[in-house]
Amino acid sequence: MSITPFSTAPAAGTAWRRALAQRYDQVRACSLALAAPLSAEDQGVQSMPDASPTKWHLAHTSWFFEAVVLMPNDGGYRPFDERFLRLFNSYYESLGPRHPRPQRGLLTRPSLDEVQAYRAHVDAAMRGLIGSAGDTAWQALAPLVELGLNHEQQHQELILTDILHALSCNPMLPAYLPHEPPVLRLATPPPAQRWLAQEGGVREVGHGGAGFAFDNEGPRHQVLLQPYRIADRLVSCGDYEQFIADGGYRNPALWLSDGWAAVQAGGWQHPAYWLAPDDPRAPAGHWQVFGLSGVRPLDAAAPVAQLSFYEAAAYAEWAGARLPTEFEWEAAFDAPGIAQMTGQVWQWTRSSYDPYPGFRPWQGAVAEYNGKFMVGQVVLRGSSSATPDGHARPTYRNFFPPAARWQFSGLRLARDGTC
Amino acid sequence: MSITPFSTAPAAGTAWRRALAQRYDQVRACSLALAAPLSAEDQGVQSMPDASPTKWHLAHTSWFFEAVVLMPNDGGYRPFDERFLRLFNSYYESLGPRHPRPQRGLLTRPSLDEVQAYRAHVDAAMRGLIGSAGDTAWQALAPLVELGLNHEQQHQELILTDILHALSCNPMLPAYLPHEPPVLRLATPPPAQRWLAQEGGVREVGHGGAGFAFDNEGPRHQVLLQPYRIADRLVSCGDYEQFIADGGYRNPALWLSDGWAAVQAGGWQHPAYWLAPDDPRAPAGHWQVFGLSGVRPLDAAAPVAQLSFYEAAAYAEWAGARLPTEFEWEAAFDAPGIAQMTGQVWQWTRSSYDPYPGFRPWQGAVAEYNGKFMVGQVVLRGSSSATPDGHARPTYRNFFPPAARWQFSGLRLARDGTC
Amino acid sequence: MSITPFSTAPAAGTAWRRALAQRYDQVRACSLALAAPLSAEDQGVQSMPDASPTKWHLAHTSWFFEAVVLMPNDGGYRPFDERFLRLFNSYYESLGPRHPRPQRGLLTRPSLDEVQAYRAHVDAAMRGLIGSAGDTAWQALAPLVELGLNHEQQHQELILTDILHALSCNPMLPAYLPHEPPVLRLATPPPAQRWLAQEGGVREVGHGGAGFAFDNEGPRHQVLLQPYRIADRLVSCGDYEQFIADGGYRNPALWLSDGWAAVQAGGWQHPAYWLAPDDPRAPAGHWQVFGLSGVRPLDAAAPVAQLSFYEAAAYAEWAGARLPTEFEWEAAFDAPGIAQMTGQVWQWTRSSYDPYPGFRPWQGAVAEYNGKFMVGQVVLRGSSSATPDGHARPTYRNFFPPAARWQFSGLRLARDGTC
Amino acid sequence: MSITPFSTAPAAGTAWRRALAQRYDQVRACSLALAAPLSAEDQGVQSMPDASPTKWHLAHTSWFFEAVVLMPNDGGYRPFDERFLRLFNSYYESLGPRHPRPQRGLLTRPSLDEVQAYRAHVDAAMRGLIGSAGDTAWQALAPLVELGLNHEQQHQELILTDILHALSCNPMLPAYLPHEPPVLRLATPPPAQRWLAQEGGVREVGHGGAGFAFDNEGPRHQVLLQPYRIADRLVSCGDYEQFIADGGYRNPALWLSDGWAAVQAGGWQHPAYWLAPDDPRAPAGHWQVFGLSGVRPLDAAAPVAQLSFYEAAAYAEWAGARLPTEFEWEAAFDAPGIAQMTGQVWQWTRSSYDPYPGFRPWQGAVAEYNGKFMVGQVVLRGSSSATPDGHARPTYRNFFPPAARWQFSGLRLARDGTC
Repeated sequence: MSITPFSTAPAAGTAWRRALAQRYDQVRACSLALAAPLSAEDQGVQSMPDASPTKWHLAHTSWFFEAVVLMPNDGGYRPFDERFLRLFNSYYESLGPRHPRPQRGLLTRPSLDEVQAYRAHVDAAMRGLIGSAGDTAWQALAPLVELGLNHEQQHQELILTDILHALSCNPMLPAYLPHEPPVLRLATPPPAQRWLAQEGGVREVGHGGAGFAFDNEGPRHQVLLQPYRIADRLVSCGDYEQFIADGGYRNPALWLSDGWAAVQAGGWQHPAYWLAPDDPRAPAGHWQVFGLSGVRPLDAAAPVAQLSFYEAAAYAEWAGARLPTEFEWEAAFDAPGIAQMTGQVWQWTRSSYDPYPGFRPWQGAVAEYNGKFMVGQVVLRGSSSATPDGHARPTYRNFFPPAARWQFSGLRLARDGTC
Repeated sequence: MSITPFSTAPAAGTAWRRALAQRYDQVRACSLALAAPLSAEDQGVQSMPDASPTKWHLAHTSWFFEAVVLMPNDGGYRPFDERFLRLFNSYYESLGPRHPRPQRGLLTRPSLDEVQAYRAHVDAAMRGLIGSAGDTAWQALAPLVELGLNHEQQHQELILTDILHALSCNPMLPAYLPHEPPVLRLATPPPAQRWLAQEGGVREVGHGGAGFAFDNEGPRHQVLLQPYRIADRLVSCGDYEQFIADGGYRNPALWLSDGWAAVQAGGWQHPAYWLAPDDPRAPAGHWQVFGLSGVRPLDAAAPVAQLSFYEAAAYAEWAGARLPTEFEWEAAFDAPGIAQMTGQVWQWTRSSYDPYPGFRPWQGAVAEYNGKFMVGQVVLRGSSSATPDGHARPTYRNFFPPAARWQFSGLRLARDGTC
Repeated sequence: MSITPFSTAPAAGTAWRRALAQRYDQVRACSLALAAPLSAEDQGVQSMPDASPTKWHLAHTSWFFEAVVLMPNDGGYRPFDERFLRLFNSYYESLGPRHPRPQRGLLTRPSLDEVQAYRAHVDAAMRGLIGSAGDTAWQALAPLVELGLNHEQQHQELILTDILHALSCNPMLPAYLPHEPPVLRLATPPPAQRWLAQEGGVREVGHGGAGFAFDNEGPRHQVLLQPYRIADRLVSCGDYEQFIADGGYRNPALWLSDGWAAVQAGGWQHPAYWLAPDDPRAPAGHWQVFGLSGVRPLDAAAPVAQLSFYEAAAYAEWAGARLPTEFEWEAAFDAPGIAQMTGQVWQWTRSSYDPYPGFRPWQGAVAEYNGKFMVGQVVLRGSSSATPDGHARPTYRNFFPPAARWQFSGLRLARDGTC
Repeated sequence: MSITPFSTAPAAGTAWRRALAQRYDQVRACSLALAAPLSAEDQGVQSMPDASPTKWHLAHTSWFFEAVVLMPNDGGYRPFDERFLRLFNSYYESLGPRHPRPQRGLLTRPSLDEVQAYRAHVDAAMRGLIGSAGDTAWQALAPLVELGLNHEQQHQELILTDILHALSCNPMLPAYLPHEPPVLRLATPPPAQRWLAQEGGVREVGHGGAGFAFDNEGPRHQVLLQPYRIADRLVSCGDYEQFIADGGYRNPALWLSDGWAAVQAGGWQHPAYWLAPDDPRAPAGHWQVFGLSGVRPLDAAAPVAQLSFYEAAAYAEWAGARLPTEFEWEAAFDAPGIAQMTGQVWQWTRSSYDPYPGFRPWQGAVAEYNGKFMVGQVVLRGSSSATPDGHARPTYRNFFPPAARWQFSGLRLARDGTC
């Protein structure tokens, strides 16, 4: 398997190799830390075909290093268990057959203990390879290691979104982390949203500089933007509560056709993790929101999350606005006065997930990483409170189907023109 | 809730009460013993809507004592957790709303530890109630305790059938009990089957005497049988192998219409737990069978199991015979020379599961125990190797939909006439 | 193909042959008469997989004569169109591949004109064969002709039930025969139902005498009945209205488990063809019923129809009664005072559709006629207002799945004991 | 209902009004002419939820004039049948409830005769309104009439695509127009494809001038294109045959992820209307294609059609190329040497169907015309052999879900860079 280097230009020398080795340990440890509050039972559950068990995430991220880094590059490597190559392949057709995705939750074996041993086995081999690879080999290896770590960070966020979905299916609504201090319901509304005017014109977008980026972020290229305005902050739960109160979920004129069909088929009346005041699971007389800390009173100032694209687009329509395109979003990343661009919620854009001009996937097995999903999905920008530190970039293109409503996904408004 | 006594006529006095208390401990301990070889991960998995997690079985059988015995009869009883009343109700409409059956596998909480504590809580209360109930109360209570124990024994068999199904979905085919001595492939075929002629005429069937029986086994009544012959033994794996070799799964003329549709829709080519000689999960060059001890060579003398009614009926057609009716089966229970009537596999009969003349369900919550399932199902008689000791009776009516193929279910042949 | 004669013992001689020829013409003409009020558009529609277009019924009944009578017995016969052998085979595996049942409504070609020409082609050949067959051949042929005519009569009833279902899917609720005089809503309730006591004991059931019967009606045999009472009349619409008013569709305690699931999944609140007083399609302020003459006021004295077995069984439970078994029904056929046994609605019994002792299907292609459906269905007895004259018999066993609610199917009550 | 004028700037005066009246008659007559080769049976069939019966198209296009033009603008207009307002509304939420789309084929009533009378009723009223409207009213009316005619033209193409799909479901593969001269299989391959280099830079796209356009074609705006090459001709059946022969349908590396899933779920091995050499419906020993004239030998020079986007994208990948974006396609519309841009097959682009900068839907009921479908679909450009004359424009944006394969849809290749 021939894998071409990424755009990242690795600094030469031992220092950089040491830095990557250290980062490897940090990222790998972080996955286990995220799993730590969960029992083995919790880590085995799969609540829908689109979500995966924590244990599977822990194993799959190890499989990625095994199948993409170790086996092609370390002649002495012995797989921990040949059968895992099939069990923990996610979607790489070129790497052989896979266990069916909707049946990941049936894998009570290997046990969590065995998966942890698998991780340790891979870690030992990875540390050996990082330490011992010749300089030439290292030039080819380092980008793959970097990719593996970014891949694992993506799954770290999925560990949280997927377990949160599983816990939301339990009528007792147990918390992932029950001991966090409760968020009080804020009496004061969030500060008024302000519009930031952007001039438009030819702008550069996409990743083109140093450092790691996924293939779908390039090539860097010029786009021509019309003048627009973008909101300085995210749409808050308080904002969204008004949309609900105004009958937003009952007015088809606000919705895209597929969105309205989803509202009716699913009986949607509010975001997936909101509890109406009279919800029988935890009646409170006021809105509540289920999250990683369990059921908490709705915080009017917090960004609304776990929204589908359909809901985001309907809200924007109701607000007399629209969603920004992904390029408008990127061009405004450093706009004076703009806030909450990262670290809160992923922000649905009004851009379908299409390839950039000149896009070519990476070569080799990792060609399947991003490109083959470029139809039927919508781009989200920014990052969320569940995104690992250091993983976000202004050029980052996250994507999900428009009906997905179990991610930390919300929205920011935009409008045409500058006044 | 007023519950009428069962047909069982409890002997008076302390001795009988002590015996039932002892039996309570034995049966309850048996459930835990069956779960003991399984990890908490194993005990949480649900592999299809028709199957339940081991942990759910452990909790539901406790819920039954709580909801049917303790709460209506023990004024001082406090439920372990009010929410469990909903989580672990199986199908009793009169006892309130229930957690949806297909989502039992999503209940990672309560944990296995908590479920075990729930069992202990119920056990303590049950022991107290058995010990302290006045004699009059005891007359009403004892049949319910007896029912609860028989109910738990039914779920003990389901613990095994359901976990076996879950393990069968794992491509590694792990064993429930790996350390059992392997069964060798017997070189000698099973002894030839003999036909036992039965005279027919008016026979008494159904339960009518002392001892516990489910409501669906009565009333005892007369039926008129035509002369028939019944096989002295079960159909063996060796017999069934010939059916496969003769193209049994490819010949629609042998199958009921719904059965042939199931063959085609499911791609059936052999019993669900048989592995063809070239099965990629464990290629061996000869037939193998997956069971509680894992994958073992096919034992030609062992009764064929995990058959659907459709397969049983097709086999009988191929063999120029038919299945016995449930009354023919019961009338032949003590026929001279007959073997393998219990303790091997449940035996599909050619009787749909209809009510007996004069059948009335029990009253109260347990009215829903059996009667409401009396349509669309087929009667099985006997008992299996997974049935707890002492649970079988000649009048026992087990029932499953005709497509079910994850039980320890096989067949015995019958024919019209006596010669 | 070797086809054995039926139990019918054909009288020798020309007279009988002439009578059958005459009957052939009458039955065949009747099918066309039933189709006559329908446009070609009406005759092409298929409203659900379980129903078939009128045109398909017209063609399939001709195919039956072609494939079962003409092709095996008339060396000179040429099929009208070889492709029709596939298009109009219903479910006979032994007669080759078939057009998928759910796609019968897509066959806009052959046109209705061509199907009528097909009928004429078959009729001409049939008349020729009936007239010219040698006496020996006739002995084998006559039973097949008789079967073909009874088969066609079954489809005549299906022509009506299936088109009625299709018309019921049209929000304009058009009538099959709009010009029939309207039935007025009767102010007087139906006469009180009386119980007719039956003694029980050994009774003969099943067909055993002269004349045509389907294979599933035999062998004639003895059954042992317990004493019972049977209602002298059918349950009327007025009776059923009380069940609805008493919350029958909201009380799970009345329903079989599968029935209650059907109520909830389908939102059942009344029989399928009843219109509630505020139905938007034809609001009237009182109950109405859709039938072959369109929407008419509910006739309290008319038998309730288009009921599923689930609804029939729930009504009986609500009424403190039960359904008769098929043998109880047959034994009471000539009971003094009994009424409405035939010609009104088919009557659901409490008997699953199992084979009689000693049952063997006919041989040859027609072996598939009845036997292969003997699981998962429920027996109905009697006949309906849509059954052709002369087609009913006391031993007739009609059968449908328990959820079927588009037939002319209702119920009669029974009870245990004689007092 | 207030409806704003379209961008079209109607010339004043009687001449233009007369021209539109004439065009009304022509367009309306064309629909009937397209339906003329079809029997009433043919015109009633619906072969899948995404397709509609011919009769429904005839009625719906009349409903559009009735509901959008006549009822809001002609005080004296009386609907032909109030019930048709519901039956023939397609998807306009603001115009009231609708008959469910998948059940359009169940509407055997109104009959085809009645639908034709409905058309005549609407035509008379429309002619009256066009002739009598005052000049001010005319300014508002004329754009709606123009829209209604363009709407009807869209349905004219759907009449052909939908009936072709229905006929393709008939195993006899009947022809829409059997008497057309057969196309011979061309021995000579199509001329080699040439690449036309396009410079890129800032280009104007979208509709902005005079004449009718749909709202989704505007606003006209600038886009920035990278240099690219575009094929001078469409991909032909001969080209596509090589893709199949090279294992294109068996190589997951060529397919988008959703596309590969569709290949596997649907068993795709070639375009939907191609017949493999051994197809049992019409075995010929060579490839054939089913079309409006029935089954014909594959014409290697003809554009491949009835392709899904998935197949188009996989072909492009196999050819070492890609699909053009919709803007690249539009910018090359008049490129020297380019051919087959319209009148052959709609051409899938690599552009998801997103709104243009500044897009706002029309107001009033017709706001639902285009905008609400702007997610999850892919843009096609050009027009097909089934598109009515005069209906195509360089700015026209057709759109379908990526799995749709019953349209006259093919592809043209593109590549990055100019050399």
